[in-house]
Amino acid sequence: MLLGKIVGTVVATRKTESLEGLKLLLVKNIDPKAKESAGYVVAADAVGAGMGEVVLYATGSSARQTEGTNNRPVDAIIMGVVDTWDIEGKTMFEKYQSVETADV
Amino acid sequence: MLLGKIVGTVVATRKTESLEGLKLLLVKNIDPKAKESAGYVVAADAVGAGMGEVVLYATGSSARQTEGTNNRPVDAIIMGVVDTWDIEGKTMFEKYQSVETADV
Amino acid sequence: MLLGKIVGTVVATRKTESLEGLKLLLVKNIDPKAKESAGYVVAADAVGAGMGEVVLYATGSSARQTEGTNNRPVDAIIMGVVDTWDIEGKTMFEKYQSVETADV
Amino acid sequence: MLLGKIVGTVVATRKTESLEGLKLLLVKNIDPKAKESAGYVVAADAVGAGMGEVVLYATGSSARQTEGTNNRPVDAIIMGVVDTWDIEGKTMFEKYQSVETADV
Amino acid sequence: MLLGKIVGTVVATRKTESLEGLKLLLVKNIDPKAKESAGYVVAADAVGAGMGEVVLYATGSSARQTEGTNNRPVDAIIMGVVDTWDIEGKTMFEKYQSVETADV
Repeated sequence: MLLGKIVGTVVATRKTESLEGLKLLLVKNIDPKAKESAGYVVAADAVGAGMGEVVLYATGSSARQTEGTNNRPVDAIIMGVVDTWDIEGKTMFEKYQSVETADV
Repeated sequence: MLLGKIVGTVVATRKTESLEGLKLLLVKNIDPKAKESAGYVVAADAVGAGMGEVVLYATGSSARQTEGTNNRPVDAIIMGVVDTWDIEGKTMFEKYQSVETADV
Repeated sequence: MLLGKIVGTVVATRKTESLEGLKLLLVKNIDPKAKESAGYVVAADAVGAGMGEVVLYATGSSARQTEGTNNRPVDAIIMGVVDTWDIEGKTMFEKYQSVETADV
Repeated sequence: MLLGKIVGTVVATRKTESLEGLKLLLVKNIDPKAKESAGYVVAADAVGAGMGEVVLYATGSSARQTEGTNNRPVDAIIMGVVDTWDIEGKTMFEKYQSVETADV
Repeated sequence: MLLGKIVGTVVATRKTESLEGLKLLLVKNIDPKAKESAGYVVAADAVGAGMGEVVLYATGSSARQTEGTNNRPVDAIIMGVVDTWDIEGKTMFEKYQSVETADV
């Protein structure tokens, strides 16, 4: 899984039938040291993630291992909203602090 | 999923039987900030995407999760035509505006 | 799928039993603008591709979706010989012209 | 599989139901010559790996081939704690020596 | 599949049960022009490859398509020992010559 930040939504009216009802979010990759990094992905949302939230996403066939994405042509899924992570004992990100400082 | 722009078609007369009838399109990757980026993919078309349209495509085994690609040796599928996306509340791409300005 | 050019063959006498009978070709990636690009792959051949031909190959589990590769430890398959492709209406590659000029 | 070092933990309270009970660790890639390299992954832990340990992790659908991750939207799994490896006969890493010198 | 050279072994005593009995080798990527290139992988060995041998390895779910790796959390498999390959008619690598000159 990788860490990302929800930065937007993608709207596609004309799509394969099996995609109906899925929310597609634009996720920018973030480095574990809480800096943004290159790259992005459009992922289906399995947890009701909101704009600006930091999330975990999985890719490949693993993205189809949820009720909402089973057997659908989806290769990226947001499956968790991140509260916090640390590196060598130091907290690198905290959701509620981050909301205030918006530094992620 | 990733964002791409349909830039061409690929014709292959001699191919595995299971590929018969699939339309293969050349898709150039585009960055969510609506600039073209490096890289391309040849993808099967599940939505009747037209030249110049901006699309969503999925890769890997997820590309086989449509009626037309099931059990076929296909690793990339166009499964949506993008109408619009935004980044942090700002519209980055709109299909109909884009057709006029052709800036994507 | 990606575009590649057949540049050689790979011989492996000592191999897993399930690989017996598969032809393994060395494929150099080519850019859709018909320049060679970095990277290569060794792919199983499902279409009888010949030296110098430009092909389409698929990777991952999709490479096992042919009669000859089903259930085999193969992660890349050549499943089409390319005749032609175009970018924005301009022909970038034509098989028969290319054979003469050998510029791909 | 790739080599990595456990550098932290990731906490996500709001997540898909199927992720309940999985421990998610932050793994920094390491080069076989025992230098850290770019890149990281968040992986589920199948072996009870501890902070600072050097591990092997697998990605993709292979990450679901354990009792704890079967049918879950998980694309990276820690499936071994590394004791030692060598390159051309020279020991590059030893777990117990490394704990003392902490040079990995 | 990609070409690699066996440069070492990896020992992991504490691992998931399903990995018992698998030999894990350190494989350095090699370029088809017979120069070493960046990158490595730890792969399970399905053919009894020896130190210094040049091999073919497959990744992803294809790595589980052998008797020894079926349903195991393994994402890379050595499935052939390479005897020779050529590029545009010129032999780039020959196993037995290479043993003498050790230039790969």
